[in-house]
Amino acid sequence: MAKYSIGIDFGTLSGRALLVNVENGEELATAVYDYPHGVMDEALPCKKKLPPDWALQNPKDYLEVLSITIPAVIKESGIDANDIIGVGVDFTACTILPVKADGTPLCFLDQFKEEPNAYVKLWKHHAAQDKANQLNEIAKATHQEWLARYGGKISSEWVFPKVWQILEESPEVYEQTDYILEAADWIIWQLTGVQTRNSCTAGYKAIWHKQDGYPPKDFFKALHPRLETVVEDKLNCPISPLGSKAGEINEFAASLTGLKVGTAVAVGNVDAHVTVPAVKIDGPGKMLAIMGTSTCHILLSTKEQTVPGMCGVVEDGVYPGFFGYEAGQSCVGDHFAWFVENCVSAEYYEAAKSDGLDIHQYLTKKAEKQKPGQSGLIALDWWNGNRSILVDVDLTGLIVGMTLHTKPEEIYRALIEATAYGTRKIIETFREHGVPVDEFYASGGISQKNPMAMQIYADIIKVPIKIGGASQGPALGSAIFGTVAAGSNIGGYDNIIEAGRKMGKLRDTIYSPIPENTVIYDQLYAEYSALHDYFGRGTNDVMKRLKEIKKLQSK
Amino acid sequence: MAKYSIGIDFGTLSGRALLVNVENGEELATAVYDYPHGVMDEALPCKKKLPPDWALQNPKDYLEVLSITIPAVIKESGIDANDIIGVGVDFTACTILPVKADGTPLCFLDQFKEEPNAYVKLWKHHAAQDKANQLNEIAKATHQEWLARYGGKISSEWVFPKVWQILEESPEVYEQTDYILEAADWIIWQLTGVQTRNSCTAGYKAIWHKQDGYPPKDFFKALHPRLETVVEDKLNCPISPLGSKAGEINEFAASLTGLKVGTAVAVGNVDAHVTVPAVKIDGPGKMLAIMGTSTCHILLSTKEQTVPGMCGVVEDGVYPGFFGYEAGQSCVGDHFAWFVENCVSAEYYEAAKSDGLDIHQYLTKKAEKQKPGQSGLIALDWWNGNRSILVDVDLTGLIVGMTLHTKPEEIYRALIEATAYGTRKIIETFREHGVPVDEFYASGGISQKNPMAMQIYADIIKVPIKIGGASQGPALGSAIFGTVAAGSNIGGYDNIIEAGRKMGKLRDTIYSPIPENTVIYDQLYAEYSALHDYFGRGTNDVMKRLKEIKKLQSK
Repeated sequence: MAKYSIGIDFGTLSGRALLVNVENGEELATAVYDYPHGVMDEALPCKKKLPPDWALQNPKDYLEVLSITIPAVIKESGIDANDIIGVGVDFTACTILPVKADGTPLCFLDQFKEEPNAYVKLWKHHAAQDKANQLNEIAKATHQEWLARYGGKISSEWVFPKVWQILEESPEVYEQTDYILEAADWIIWQLTGVQTRNSCTAGYKAIWHKQDGYPPKDFFKALHPRLETVVEDKLNCPISPLGSKAGEINEFAASLTGLKVGTAVAVGNVDAHVTVPAVKIDGPGKMLAIMGTSTCHILLSTKEQTVPGMCGVVEDGVYPGFFGYEAGQSCVGDHFAWFVENCVSAEYYEAAKSDGLDIHQYLTKKAEKQKPGQSGLIALDWWNGNRSILVDVDLTGLIVGMTLHTKPEEIYRALIEATAYGTRKIIETFREHGVPVDEFYASGGISQKNPMAMQIYADIIKVPIKIGGASQGPALGSAIFGTVAAGSNIGGYDNIIEAGRKMGKLRDTIYSPIPENTVIYDQLYAEYSALHDYFGRGTNDVMKRLKEIKKLQSK
Repeated sequence: MAKYSIGIDFGTLSGRALLVNVENGEELATAVYDYPHGVMDEALPCKKKLPPDWALQNPKDYLEVLSITIPAVIKESGIDANDIIGVGVDFTACTILPVKADGTPLCFLDQFKEEPNAYVKLWKHHAAQDKANQLNEIAKATHQEWLARYGGKISSEWVFPKVWQILEESPEVYEQTDYILEAADWIIWQLTGVQTRNSCTAGYKAIWHKQDGYPPKDFFKALHPRLETVVEDKLNCPISPLGSKAGEINEFAASLTGLKVGTAVAVGNVDAHVTVPAVKIDGPGKMLAIMGTSTCHILLSTKEQTVPGMCGVVEDGVYPGFFGYEAGQSCVGDHFAWFVENCVSAEYYEAAKSDGLDIHQYLTKKAEKQKPGQSGLIALDWWNGNRSILVDVDLTGLIVGMTLHTKPEEIYRALIEATAYGTRKIIETFREHGVPVDEFYASGGISQKNPMAMQIYADIIKVPIKIGGASQGPALGSAIFGTVAAGSNIGGYDNIIEAGRKMGKLRDTIYSPIPENTVIYDQLYAEYSALHDYFGRGTNDVMKRLKEIKKLQSK
């Protein structure tokens, strides 16, 4: 009798369930549910206005994802719920919420319905930036050793700046809160009745280390006297490695979802990190790039190294038994979207329309006729700052080489090339610091939709690129983790590597570097590197000074 | 009885006559004639194809300008031709043609009708670039002193590269040619029967110096043995200072134009240089910028100085008795045209249309709401290389500071600002090398049509800007020179300064620097200068290397 697994992927605007065959990862059914409250960045449901940079969600929407999509995929696939052996969940991160001791979100209480700090703070909630700045200053001044594990900087998107914001702005919410936790872990709690935290978000987002634990009390005290005991007060919970079982579907969850009581549930995970087994990555040296509006890079190693500018290194943070490294580029798909929205002529839009192409396809059709370097252009891909390896949000975009004959498709291609140079910079930095990168895997929309972009990437990074084959990489990854939570005794797998090898999916197409292109791109990458260092490492801080003037003049 | 003067301005696509009152420059009539042959850049009239980079004209068209526009303005104004005391002519330059001893163009001879090198080589004929390169190499290797007067480089647009091309490619044309001269001087010859050459084009385009004459024979011999005597063989003719009389209308010209025999004719002039009296410039320290697709800067001084990167310094080259300096920016209006053609979204075109504005007006309306520096952008205005002060056609455009929020109007404004920084760089370079610039005048379309651009220029160069008031600056300038050729005895003027003061025109509006803007623009100009030197003076020759790769990959 075939066995099945369900992966549930909570995105920014919707949640999705995917039901797959445990033997081979075959997709039997999928269902999507758009969050009714979406991203609340202007007002609460009660119409109370939110200040700029806020981004909240309502956890009620997450429960509805469970109650709607899981029954839908069971029904659509026509299988017996008894044959579903495991469930995995991944989520955006760092996406956190304050809850009571029984798991009730504070925003569900009448008392806090109109209090923004009682809601879920979504990953892209940026209103704690001043807290992040203060935290980084104090961490640097007090020589916190853990800072190096995060490229020297803690993001305003992560746990402690957001927690500090709650304390500072809404001390009563903070007081009434028993736990502050990732939405991923909260969902697992709802499904199993067990509160446990996953090592991935604990490590990458909450400054937790398997040996050293959280930062010392002195450090938290220096932020705010009441934060001295923040870990005991609000984060007090065991941490489980990825690949382990969090618990089993309880009666509440069974009635909500139609799953059977006792079905294994994996510990929570993050959408990027969970994709690794979905592309069959089975060990160190194999970098995965999840390419969307931005790109996230995940890489395993057997050693813990300090790599400048990475987003974090966490033991058990991706696969148990390995150190998981994360790096990122903050502007990839967003970059191309900016370009087509702002800089492509009406003539091109009309031509695209009459050719029956969307504007990206039309530009690609024109750009793929060019040879490397034929445009004479080079760009620095910093329209949204540089995450890895410079960790500097104040850097901005640059393009050089325009003439009166420069065409939009040439600029478009130059922007794609720029993001590929950025990826090569990340790969080389890992290698230079003792973390090998021997293979390269890509998933996400761009990797599946734009062969020209992927060939450019292969030519620039000089490593063949394999493309994830699942229609929904994160959901498949979650389903794979679900089978490991179930274990081989009941038809699942005993470890994530084996499960990924069986259930992961790659396309047949591999993009291999074209030798004559790599010769030219090596030259262009040398130019990129010179500009990267000149503008990014302090020789000429013109980008930062321009930003200062911009701020001053925008007041 | 009122007296009148006619100015005839030969442009790239048409010729224009303007009839004005000598007392005050009042415009009474104007007439335009489009050259029937236009610019021949693809084929000769006989359909013979032309190679790339050629740009020829047919001198027959010039004669038709005389025979059509002069009678037209006399008729339209209703005045008596006896009251027209002077005629002036200006032309594009360097625009040259080979002629027989009697002035007959070689292309008029049946024998050479199908020979491209027998036609007028228009200023933008660029097919002699390899000759210019060789000439510059030899000049540098043999330490020619005159090279410094031209910013260290002779352009392929100028006389000797074009003459050398005739010799090399069509030795028979060269053999049969008695004179090679500027079209301006040929027109004067047609009007007066007298061959004389103007000191302006002789100096700026034919490497002539009032004291030293032409370059030495040794130099020409090093180019080609037959060029050793090129000056005696083909340029042998007296040179007259600007502001002097070339001769008088002869019977041929009278019958052609309806002017009276004996009417004074000024020596020929160049369209940019002739505009100086039309804006009332009456002495040293007053820079005129003629702003069109490119910008040309003209400045008088009492001293001959070597200024790096200027286009030339010529005694009597603008006004008699002064050293005339020329500098230039190779991409101004062209820059903005490139931007709106390639980089402005369909949405903006539609919005402009529904507001009843052209796209430049629409972008300006949006851009003028911004404060200096508010966009966070800086550009280097080198889309078409840098003429002054770097004299380097291999430099290319750069823009820095983009974010995902950058809008087209911000880039548009940054490009305008970039050209203004380029102008400030030219002004400062003159000042640093002993040529004062105390006042600034602008003429040409941009100066009259775009108040935002002119305010930006004033704020950046920190000098008030006066705007030429004539509808046709060059034609008015030619008419003014015509009155000086006539002299005061018959109702004209005895010198160009007096004539310009009376007949020149300025608008009432003066753009004065706004103090709070100059503070910000000083900071931004410092950033521009740092980038200018980094990319333009050899610290990082990335632009040139990219061009090399581009050439290689375009083969």
